[in-house]
Amino acid sequence: MAEGPLSEAELKKLHAYWRAANYLSVGQIYLLANPLLREPLQVKHIKPRLLGHWGTTPGLNFLYAHLNRVIKSRDLDAIFICGPGHGGPAMVANAYLEGTYTETYPDVTQDLIGLQKLFRQFSFPGGIPSHDAPETPGSIHEGGELGYALTHAYGAAFDNPNLKVFCVIGDGEAETGPLAASWHSNKFLNPQTDGAVLPILHLNGYKIANPTLLARIPEDELRRLLEGYGYAPYIIAGDDPMDMHQRMAALLDLVLDEIEEIQGKGRKHGKPARPRWPMIVMRTPKGWTGPKEVDGLPVEGTWRAHQVPIDNMTKPEHLRILDRWLRSYRPEELFDTDGALVRELSALAPRGPRRMSANPHANGGELLQELRLPDFRDYAVKVDKPATTFDEATKVLGAFLRDVIVHNPHNFRLMGPDETASNRLSAVFDVTNRDWLADVLPTDDHLAPDARAGWRATC
Amino acid sequence: MAEGPLSEAELKKLHAYWRAANYLSVGQIYLLANPLLREPLQVKHIKPRLLGHWGTTPGLNFLYAHLNRVIKSRDLDAIFICGPGHGGPAMVANAYLEGTYTETYPDVTQDLIGLQKLFRQFSFPGGIPSHDAPETPGSIHEGGELGYALTHAYGAAFDNPNLKVFCVIGDGEAETGPLAASWHSNKFLNPQTDGAVLPILHLNGYKIANPTLLARIPEDELRRLLEGYGYAPYIIAGDDPMDMHQRMAALLDLVLDEIEEIQGKGRKHGKPARPRWPMIVMRTPKGWTGPKEVDGLPVEGTWRAHQVPIDNMTKPEHLRILDRWLRSYRPEELFDTDGALVRELSALAPRGPRRMSANPHANGGELLQELRLPDFRDYAVKVDKPATTFDEATKVLGAFLRDVIVHNPHNFRLMGPDETASNRLSAVFDVTNRDWLADVLPTDDHLAPDARAGWRATC
Repeated sequence: MAEGPLSEAELKKLHAYWRAANYLSVGQIYLLANPLLREPLQVKHIKPRLLGHWGTTPGLNFLYAHLNRVIKSRDLDAIFICGPGHGGPAMVANAYLEGTYTETYPDVTQDLIGLQKLFRQFSFPGGIPSHDAPETPGSIHEGGELGYALTHAYGAAFDNPNLKVFCVIGDGEAETGPLAASWHSNKFLNPQTDGAVLPILHLNGYKIANPTLLARIPEDELRRLLEGYGYAPYIIAGDDPMDMHQRMAALLDLVLDEIEEIQGKGRKHGKPARPRWPMIVMRTPKGWTGPKEVDGLPVEGTWRAHQVPIDNMTKPEHLRILDRWLRSYRPEELFDTDGALVRELSALAPRGPRRMSANPHANGGELLQELRLPDFRDYAVKVDKPATTFDEATKVLGAFLRDVIVHNPHNFRLMGPDETASNRLSAVFDVTNRDWLADVLPTDDHLAPDARAGWRATC
Repeated sequence: MAEGPLSEAELKKLHAYWRAANYLSVGQIYLLANPLLREPLQVKHIKPRLLGHWGTTPGLNFLYAHLNRVIKSRDLDAIFICGPGHGGPAMVANAYLEGTYTETYPDVTQDLIGLQKLFRQFSFPGGIPSHDAPETPGSIHEGGELGYALTHAYGAAFDNPNLKVFCVIGDGEAETGPLAASWHSNKFLNPQTDGAVLPILHLNGYKIANPTLLARIPEDELRRLLEGYGYAPYIIAGDDPMDMHQRMAALLDLVLDEIEEIQGKGRKHGKPARPRWPMIVMRTPKGWTGPKEVDGLPVEGTWRAHQVPIDNMTKPEHLRILDRWLRSYRPEELFDTDGALVRELSALAPRGPRRMSANPHANGGELLQELRLPDFRDYAVKVDKPATTFDEATKVLGAFLRDVIVHNPHNFRLMGPDETASNRLSAVFDVTNRDWLADVLPTDDHLAPDARAGWRATC
């Protein structure tokens, strides 16, 4: 047995949970019928048009299972930001395994009939998108457009001191401009009053047809880059599932201890300083656990695993590969006679709102508070006679926003690219400062680590 | 005298050239008349509305003067990309000092009358923009929108093996997404067949009202970030002009030697590898050499120097500060009786097309070559009877592009975010590969360091 913090029983169950999520993911991409392979697999059970992204999915499922473990063991209030949102099957599979999917969509029941519906609806006319979509329980980050995962993660953590935001970043996404700049958001996160973001850079090595840059630079260069962004990176790499389970379990315990320590220090002492927040680089094969080879060409661990790793099911050899792949997860051990996840595994998921797919922070409607707004008429510019008075619209707006800040100290935030003053909103500085956890000099103007008027980026 | 590679005479002249560019920059921002202060400065000589960006300008002028020196001493074919394009006065001033401005706009003569026109037209009704604009000689990078400096610099260097592209990046611009991602362009630059880009990150510390992130992280963190981007960074910091002249002269000699060595190695040996290209971080005060204090508040070295450091010239004290500031450059030593730059200084600029403001690479029209295009009719899909034939438009386009590549081996390049294959343009891979200077694995498909079909960024 692989060495690490997990007992043999824990390891076995965690691995089975991952197998279940992977099975449900492949099922969504391929199956129209025969959801638990209780009959021999035939072409008629396969969708006529195959669409979906397998490549990133097993990595997302692996992380989700491990994050569930630490949520339970530490009673964490946590959400999952799925940067590689193309891996929609993973997010749907996990919401289904946790029961949230059925709670939200009662017709997708936790049995054979529901499984068949779950599979059929995926990327299918009248069904659901292949990306992590707004209708996926637990999603606050639409997975179609890459680049905004970290921005959304930090946005979720601001002013939510107890929230942990697990943010998976694909290495394709990491090459986009918005993502490349948003690593620096750690200079605006206050360990006293904000929650924590744990970025997890998932280096599976490939985009749609090409390797990714961050997977093809020396590890020392990658480490320097991430340290330069202000993080303490932990790199975990491998492809042996049991070994990786043990190491990921140990690593998550370590980084969550570090986050606790940072927040403990930050909250005990008066003056918040910028910590080196931990982050994880997970290097696993693209399409991990999928077919190793199709038509004599390598698939697992290459760009060929990006979308649908085997198509054209009229070829008997392809059907055989798919059958072997699906059965490799041993669905008969994972689901009971009715088609529901066996109790031993469903017990691994967190309960109620602790489930990442059901966390109210991932469903704005449940936590929405009306802003307390002053009457805008009170800010009217008095004009006794037309064309006799000068004023500036945004200056008036500034006074209004100042009072919005006063009346909504914890659920209103002004964001902008360093143009609060030049856009004449300076009245807000009567009641707040600009957020800033980087170094401060005596000549600075209204900068503070516990400010309310956040700002971002450029001139 | 400060120690370094410059003789006392060289140092004195280089410094005088910088003073001249700075004088012309301040003149553009402030003066309507009395361009060489041959009468006592009065309110009526000042523009009624003051617009322009001083903060970044002296740093740009400093670099321009030093780059002129190395262009002459090494006979370089070089252009200047002005990332902080708000510093338009610098680019106009240098084009004027080199004579290109007058060649392009003959009414802006190199005498008192021309100087007055040069000053008056800047950011003035019917005049020129305050940014480094397309009409500024030598500009291929419009300075109004920040973020694209490095992308434009690498674009200019591709397939121009003898070109040096000096690319100044403002620390405000460096916070934008496009800039943050484009550092990685070094993974696509081939030392054998492409020119060189020398990124110069100008850390003057501030944006419009706030400090910049990269100026407020520890130097070690900044260094790691830039090393992580794959560069060998050289950091130069200071505010004493004579000392900084000597150090910048030495540093430019060093990095240009390194570039020569990289290109020499790359061109002698068969297989190009990704070098660690040098880059410079120049940390100088914002608004360097400008007013130290106005109305009791510090200006030089703070965000207050970003735009117009003193306004409201009806205050006698403000007028006095401006007068002292302008005269601190000693214009009487720089310009002759007619108002032309003294010969000793004009001799410092490179000649003809070696001037960065006159380099034909910065003027597409001079180097434009017609593409040799095959007849598109030859690619027509044959349709004998309507609605009987299937084909894919982009697949047909791929065949056309393949032949465009064959017929234009050095002046056509296909760029895209890793979608050449998925967009059905794969026919181009019959004749070219994808550009890639990062690590390569045996399973990779059509990747090569000397490929033609470049690609960028994400899935």
